[in-house]
Amino acid sequence: MQSPTNNDGEILNEFELIARLSQLESAKTTEGGNTVFTGIGDDAAVVSMPASQMLLTADAIVDGVHFRSVDERWFDIGWKCAVSNLSDIAAMGGIPDHALVTLGVPPASSIDTYAEFYNGMNAAFSEFGGSIVGGDVVSSETMFVNLALTGHPSTDSFGEPITMRRTEAKVGDLVCVTGPLGSSAGGLEALLNCETNPSGNILIERHYHPTPRIKIGSKLVATGVRCAMDVSDGLVGDLEKIAKSSGVTITVEMANIPLATELTFMFGSRAIEFALSGGEDYELVFTAPKPLVADLVANDIGITVIGSVDSCESPGAQVKILDANGELYEPIRKGWDHLNV
Amino acid sequence: MQSPTNNDGEILNEFELIARLSQLESAKTTEGGNTVFTGIGDDAAVVSMPASQMLLTADAIVDGVHFRSVDERWFDIGWKCAVSNLSDIAAMGGIPDHALVTLGVPPASSIDTYAEFYNGMNAAFSEFGGSIVGGDVVSSETMFVNLALTGHPSTDSFGEPITMRRTEAKVGDLVCVTGPLGSSAGGLEALLNCETNPSGNILIERHYHPTPRIKIGSKLVATGVRCAMDVSDGLVGDLEKIAKSSGVTITVEMANIPLATELTFMFGSRAIEFALSGGEDYELVFTAPKPLVADLVANDIGITVIGSVDSCESPGAQVKILDANGELYEPIRKGWDHLNV
Repeated sequence: MQSPTNNDGEILNEFELIARLSQLESAKTTEGGNTVFTGIGDDAAVVSMPASQMLLTADAIVDGVHFRSVDERWFDIGWKCAVSNLSDIAAMGGIPDHALVTLGVPPASSIDTYAEFYNGMNAAFSEFGGSIVGGDVVSSETMFVNLALTGHPSTDSFGEPITMRRTEAKVGDLVCVTGPLGSSAGGLEALLNCETNPSGNILIERHYHPTPRIKIGSKLVATGVRCAMDVSDGLVGDLEKIAKSSGVTITVEMANIPLATELTFMFGSRAIEFALSGGEDYELVFTAPKPLVADLVANDIGITVIGSVDSCESPGAQVKILDANGELYEPIRKGWDHLNV
Repeated sequence: MQSPTNNDGEILNEFELIARLSQLESAKTTEGGNTVFTGIGDDAAVVSMPASQMLLTADAIVDGVHFRSVDERWFDIGWKCAVSNLSDIAAMGGIPDHALVTLGVPPASSIDTYAEFYNGMNAAFSEFGGSIVGGDVVSSETMFVNLALTGHPSTDSFGEPITMRRTEAKVGDLVCVTGPLGSSAGGLEALLNCETNPSGNILIERHYHPTPRIKIGSKLVATGVRCAMDVSDGLVGDLEKIAKSSGVTITVEMANIPLATELTFMFGSRAIEFALSGGEDYELVFTAPKPLVADLVANDIGITVIGSVDSCESPGAQVKILDANGELYEPIRKGWDHLNV
């Protein structure tokens, strides 16, 4: 195998790469007494635990599947890699803490690639919380990155940990989202078709630079919401996971799904398909009792009611999409199965 | 891309694979009130934290680099993948807690492959501590697995967390190992040369079925040892990391390095080279003051003194190997750089 090189084409080794990347590490000490005692460079990182409960999540990205190395947008790829993990913590209503990054490094990679990638990740952690404390570097024909992220739950007024789970949707709940859907998928389409008009550029920016909904996640769980997930694989597919986990049927009024102006401007009637099946907007979808949703709407925190939770009719039809006439609508695609892309 | 299949050649999706693997999950509740509230199947796992400090480590394995999928020893590959992470916790003197497993799944993989792999990991966790609580499944041309593992430090008699770090070697310390070195590398050589005589088979077993030194790691840290690491990349290369981190010179008396009888029987004078540069025995190497080492030896916990810690002479010569005549010995290879294999 050819080995990674630095700017001058010198072959660098694993330890030089780790040394370079550890200099880019985000702040060692984060808020709330959440301290890193030993970071990159020992057998394991040693950190303090800010709470009695911990959240744990991992997400990997693979060249040619989740990103294209030929695009060379390393900062953006790093940002998005961090966001996909931060979003999982947001979906639990939690606060991000510590990250472990594993790099699968292909032959003849540039060290600067990884420095840019780390800069993108660190930018997201610095804005939304969390810091890189360790990881691994391995040789691999296919470039991949795995990020494992810890966090801790928000607490209620008695100091007890509270989370939002997929199993907690109750019959009678309303279904809400925290923002417009489909923009990331629309941005990808605009990118692939080179549609760099102003609307296209806004959507492309949404595709490359999504926001994890950490703040609103914390607000929702503090207000009493107990069922949520992030829309990462497509609204319909993701709602099916909630419906299955909670043993309920979910009905969505298609006309109520919020869409970005740019998306409808560029794609017209296709916009709704992006919203139903396109992932990676990283908005949260949640269910909550009607009075609680009324409070949230009254407080203007930026949520939209898109449907309701009903009792489970049959195992095969757990998510129903209704069009503006109340007729059952069959989406072209429901979401993403990561082994069949 | 072709997709993974089950026994009947049916194409399985990501969610079916996760469902199958989550049935193989190790016990949800582990010792000491260390409980998993939410395991596989939500945005993040929710676990209780058994201590105020946490250890975090990650290790990835890649097909063709760390294992060969053509060998189809999936249980053993899973065991070893868990052990390489458990060993990092052992090297800190810690106790393993929770694992996140990311699978990079190539086209046309069999689900049974992953079930066997998980059985191997779970067997190691069940024997040495830790349980799988979540992870990710992604499509990848190259098969890879990333394991992220948390643990917590041992505590002293006042309940304060104590760890062993690479930075803590002190001038005057003795250097010790917890068992014979080179057996895993000898086993790999025996395997590649098909030397399946009784000695070869014992070494091959050591290669496939190493033991993480969790118990002795806890004992060492409890007794007062504060500097250790696991020998995973080769003794000389690993000692260089301690020497560099602690700013000292380490001198090793080659004749004192413990070797398995089978290794010297099969490889004669080559045995020492396996011991100096072969990784993956997962023994611990540590440094400690002479009186402490004398106590450990008197208590017969199975350690061997192999060298001493001196003040740093020059940055270029931090690990010196002396042969039986006290002459400087230059090993053929010092260890493994994972980007230049």
